[in-house]
Amino acid sequence: MIVSRAEVRVRYAETDMMGIAYHGNYLPWFEIGRTTLLREQGLPYAELERMGYRLPVLQVRAKYRRPALYDDVLTIVTTMKEQPILRIRLDYRVLRGEELLATGHTEHAFINHENQPVRPPPQFVARMKELFG
Amino acid sequence: MIVSRAEVRVRYAETDMMGIAYHGNYLPWFEIGRTTLLREQGLPYAELERMGYRLPVLQVRAKYRRPALYDDVLTIVTTMKEQPILRIRLDYRVLRGEELLATGHTEHAFINHENQPVRPPPQFVARMKELFG
Amino acid sequence: MIVSRAEVRVRYAETDMMGIAYHGNYLPWFEIGRTTLLREQGLPYAELERMGYRLPVLQVRAKYRRPALYDDVLTIVTTMKEQPILRIRLDYRVLRGEELLATGHTEHAFINHENQPVRPPPQFVARMKELFG
Amino acid sequence: MIVSRAEVRVRYAETDMMGIAYHGNYLPWFEIGRTTLLREQGLPYAELERMGYRLPVLQVRAKYRRPALYDDVLTIVTTMKEQPILRIRLDYRVLRGEELLATGHTEHAFINHENQPVRPPPQFVARMKELFG
Repeated sequence: MIVSRAEVRVRYAETDMMGIAYHGNYLPWFEIGRTTLLREQGLPYAELERMGYRLPVLQVRAKYRRPALYDDVLTIVTTMKEQPILRIRLDYRVLRGEELLATGHTEHAFINHENQPVRPPPQFVARMKELFG
Repeated sequence: MIVSRAEVRVRYAETDMMGIAYHGNYLPWFEIGRTTLLREQGLPYAELERMGYRLPVLQVRAKYRRPALYDDVLTIVTTMKEQPILRIRLDYRVLRGEELLATGHTEHAFINHENQPVRPPPQFVARMKELFG
Repeated sequence: MIVSRAEVRVRYAETDMMGIAYHGNYLPWFEIGRTTLLREQGLPYAELERMGYRLPVLQVRAKYRRPALYDDVLTIVTTMKEQPILRIRLDYRVLRGEELLATGHTEHAFINHENQPVRPPPQFVARMKELFG
Repeated sequence: MIVSRAEVRVRYAETDMMGIAYHGNYLPWFEIGRTTLLREQGLPYAELERMGYRLPVLQVRAKYRRPALYDDVLTIVTTMKEQPILRIRLDYRVLRGEELLATGHTEHAFINHENQPVRPPPQFVARMKELFG
């Protein structure tokens, strides 16, 4: 299991007229979570793209428990629970201190620049084997 | 069952460096779908807010099948399949012509300005009774 | 002088906790204005990109007079006042009915896919000659 | 003169199909710059709002010199050059290391919750006097 933590501070631009962070903005925060996880594992996403890979979101789910407010400092906890084969699943928790604000997950698969599904890059496969043994 | 159709044209601002519409932007499109549905039923959301109600998103799910591209004209088909009691569920399909690009759903519940769950506004209840008999 | 009108309805996602449309969202609205103008002149921007051209924003200015509110239907009036040589300047007015909410302008220049400045595409030049005589 | 520095890392969500950060996203970055400046001066914007003040953007200008790319770590340098009387002007520079990517400025004025122009909050006035002497 790989766990990563990233911090975001809620921007004014991310609030809506309900006075809270707009629910759609959690998706970019999840994205920050997973790119931080990849970077920490020596697999920066920008480099994967330069090597010809893309990792689009196939599906996303988010559950909102409590609102995030402007200027809140949030922690995005991203977890890869299982060794990915073709599909990669990531789970997210959004916290304000100890308080759980939202949960979610995304599913991904590698594609090439012609939008065709491909096997994960060798570096990715090697690193996953190391981690999940 | 209530069905509503709304059109959006993909903005340049909504694309990402993959050359497609960023997956997070489907959530504002779902929002356009449901506010169009409410407006068509004589229940504009802006009015519900003025009456002291709010209808936050409790959860959202989206599945992406094919990418939407810049300048595409998309149809958001929003469906309310069942008469809502306390929870309101809406289903979405995002189409480019006949082609299905994405599906999703959201769940909502009415709250007041103190963020407490409340019964739906009387107009809403009356209209739902009319529609679902 | 070329004038074009486009309509946008303010999305919930575009509001902020001040209860009004976030000032940054006027830039995507200006973008809708100029792409509508180009489309109406037979020069859809998507096609210009396919031909190898890009038209980035070099500078932007916006002045906000009155707030736009959620669900407002706005008209973006885009004007090209002078025949563009290398630089293209567009002026914008954002209206709610007769009421002027904001003004702005952008400046652009054509570049190629290597980010080098290039002369405008021949179709563009020909159309501008027709229009500005 | 007050100077403040804030860091942002370009999000995937902030890129567009040109492969660079969408020009509109510099406005939220400017906003991060000025809220960081206010926080560092002991005047967090969230607190000013709780005290009944708002500080909307009256105008904004941005000039783009070089594109910012996905995953770039940018520094937003925000400067208040003159003691604000009723209008507050802030200048921004967006840097990647030593390289200047963009410049801009915004103008603001305090309003109350009824959207009427008001004098700046006493704490703000006192702090500005201290700083600009």
